[in-house]
Amino acid sequence: MATANGIVTLMTDFGTVDGYVAAMKGSLLGVNRQATIVDVTHHIPPQDITEAAFQVATVWSAFPPGTIHVIVVDPGVGGERRAVVVEAGGQFFVTPDNGLLTLLTANAFPVEVVVLDRPEFFLADVSSTFHGRDIFAPVAGHLSTGSVQLRDLGSPIANDSLVALPWAPIQDAPSRIHAPVVSIDRFGNCRTLIARRHLTAGPSAIYVRCGDVTIRGIHRTYGDVPAGKTMALFGSHGGLEIAVRGGSAAQSWEIRRGDDVVVYTEESSEP
Amino acid sequence: MATANGIVTLMTDFGTVDGYVAAMKGSLLGVNRQATIVDVTHHIPPQDITEAAFQVATVWSAFPPGTIHVIVVDPGVGGERRAVVVEAGGQFFVTPDNGLLTLLTANAFPVEVVVLDRPEFFLADVSSTFHGRDIFAPVAGHLSTGSVQLRDLGSPIANDSLVALPWAPIQDAPSRIHAPVVSIDRFGNCRTLIARRHLTAGPSAIYVRCGDVTIRGIHRTYGDVPAGKTMALFGSHGGLEIAVRGGSAAQSWEIRRGDDVVVYTEESSEP
Amino acid sequence: MATANGIVTLMTDFGTVDGYVAAMKGSLLGVNRQATIVDVTHHIPPQDITEAAFQVATVWSAFPPGTIHVIVVDPGVGGERRAVVVEAGGQFFVTPDNGLLTLLTANAFPVEVVVLDRPEFFLADVSSTFHGRDIFAPVAGHLSTGSVQLRDLGSPIANDSLVALPWAPIQDAPSRIHAPVVSIDRFGNCRTLIARRHLTAGPSAIYVRCGDVTIRGIHRTYGDVPAGKTMALFGSHGGLEIAVRGGSAAQSWEIRRGDDVVVYTEESSEP
Repeated sequence: MATANGIVTLMTDFGTVDGYVAAMKGSLLGVNRQATIVDVTHHIPPQDITEAAFQVATVWSAFPPGTIHVIVVDPGVGGERRAVVVEAGGQFFVTPDNGLLTLLTANAFPVEVVVLDRPEFFLADVSSTFHGRDIFAPVAGHLSTGSVQLRDLGSPIANDSLVALPWAPIQDAPSRIHAPVVSIDRFGNCRTLIARRHLTAGPSAIYVRCGDVTIRGIHRTYGDVPAGKTMALFGSHGGLEIAVRGGSAAQSWEIRRGDDVVVYTEESSEP
Repeated sequence: MATANGIVTLMTDFGTVDGYVAAMKGSLLGVNRQATIVDVTHHIPPQDITEAAFQVATVWSAFPPGTIHVIVVDPGVGGERRAVVVEAGGQFFVTPDNGLLTLLTANAFPVEVVVLDRPEFFLADVSSTFHGRDIFAPVAGHLSTGSVQLRDLGSPIANDSLVALPWAPIQDAPSRIHAPVVSIDRFGNCRTLIARRHLTAGPSAIYVRCGDVTIRGIHRTYGDVPAGKTMALFGSHGGLEIAVRGGSAAQSWEIRRGDDVVVYTEESSEP
Repeated sequence: MATANGIVTLMTDFGTVDGYVAAMKGSLLGVNRQATIVDVTHHIPPQDITEAAFQVATVWSAFPPGTIHVIVVDPGVGGERRAVVVEAGGQFFVTPDNGLLTLLTANAFPVEVVVLDRPEFFLADVSSTFHGRDIFAPVAGHLSTGSVQLRDLGSPIANDSLVALPWAPIQDAPSRIHAPVVSIDRFGNCRTLIARRHLTAGPSAIYVRCGDVTIRGIHRTYGDVPAGKTMALFGSHGGLEIAVRGGSAAQSWEIRRGDDVVVYTEESSEP
């Protein structure tokens, strides 16, 4: 069980022109005047859950244990989507349950998940349009005090019951998994949600294939191969990516978002 | 009398490209190292007092009692406009007296107003161009310590003597007031500065008229009427607004900024 | 020797769309949970050291003594450029040694400079691409605690050994210095890196010449001369600038970035 350290980060698609983010901060400070608030970004493209999922996965581990991350990209606000708090990797994530944690949980498996069903931790009046201010911020505020435990905030649900983006890895044969390229960054690195824990063999026994390219082994960092060489590694988002050192894997191999990536061992049947 | 809680919010038209906002924060922290600073927005269009007045009115109540709001949209800096601190709604507002609080005070009437005429609370050298850094930030810093009271900061002036935007409601007959549409938001909601305290009868006895549409009664929230229905309600900015649930009042009724809104009771003469 | 006050400012060219700045903050708070972090700007044009040097020089003095300024505009990251901490003007500057402090040190001469060569103050794993998170932020975190002194952080180097932008003033005759116009702001003020300490005579005995205009004396502020008059003064960045009150010096005298400015006394040979 992690203990909150009083730091609360905020990530939204609200932008910085209006006062919405400030309203969340006011609501949070109204609960815990001592919280330390850090903006991650408020420029997630509106309702782009995938982009937010990437940002969460790349940023959280830079924070100390016990940090609370509030992520509000919430196209389903006011509908039936659940609101949850998740403990994973020694930190907390307060968010609508709509896939925002898909990449995080690919690498840091949740140790506890509760659904937010206790209105005593919400604002007195909950609007149907602004749960960031009315639910997520005050819940984070209570948790950040350190005197409210995760399990006080709501009813536990199964650790693996979170909504996931439809790009999670699938095992379709013994020792063989595949997953689509979910994002290509500006350097042409092609990223998937395949996490270390999905691998069924050591890195050197692994083959990674996407379209015309097959890579043997998984390297630790870009510097491990010569310039121009194609490689597979676990990127800063926590998932497997295909890269060309000093070049663009997407361009070299004509890889596009959605293309299938297969990971297998010599023992497994060839894809 | 409210007591400062140490939270200071900032709203300006300075943008975030230059270091102006940081200079205000440095000045404030130089006075009170313990202040908690929250940015509301620095993207108010340059010198757009109306827009800032809306943002103030929609955001302040999300903050806990005793919060200090510094608002610097200040086309008259260096001229004869007054600088003031206002207590209203249990919070404090530090600002040039140029109409920025018009919408706030439509709903939360000032209990105390002082004009900033005591240079001992300013920076030692006050420029003629940057009162945000030289006057407003250090004054907020002193107030935020909790050891300086509102009335220490300057000479009291009449609570109703603040400069107001030219869109305040006017009573032109018994039980009849009118005021222009001061802003139309992106959903087509048409907003006025008519506040609850202006009403001379209960909500259900009220008629609201603008151009071709007359609405009986004032509803509490959008959800109180069926989709497509035109309604009047008090918006999040604290003023009366005309809306169409799930649609655009501005478009349905061809309402434009500046159009006259009349509020009357059956007893009053028809407009 | 200045003592850290726990305030840490951040200036970068990272923008606010991605989580890079947040990662720096997480890293810093991981070292010193009590630090007060202030964003100066993250919208420095990518790799524009000159622009950042101006921003540093105009903002730092608004902060209280003992503030730490972290400036990361770092085109040479991963190469051989040094990383340094500089104490000047009673404050600290944590930055790559690539000219970012050129304008600052034109006015506030460094009293102590150390090169960052002690990995125990860095993150355990230092990447080759993100020293903001891995080196500069944690070093600032340690210094901000107050229990680590500047000289603990690295090996001292000569106070005048910092890399400087190529626009520093040059003395080319007794009592005569010159330097190029390094920046022209949106008001047409033409700014140089000539600092007060470069002058060899009192302000009234000084002549300033640039192209077709020669100005006698240095004024204190714009208001000291009538409208339309050309003047020389020390601007908010700490360097000598040529201005026209209520007008544009650049336009009036056709001055461009890079043009030579000469400062001399009657005794010195005319330029």
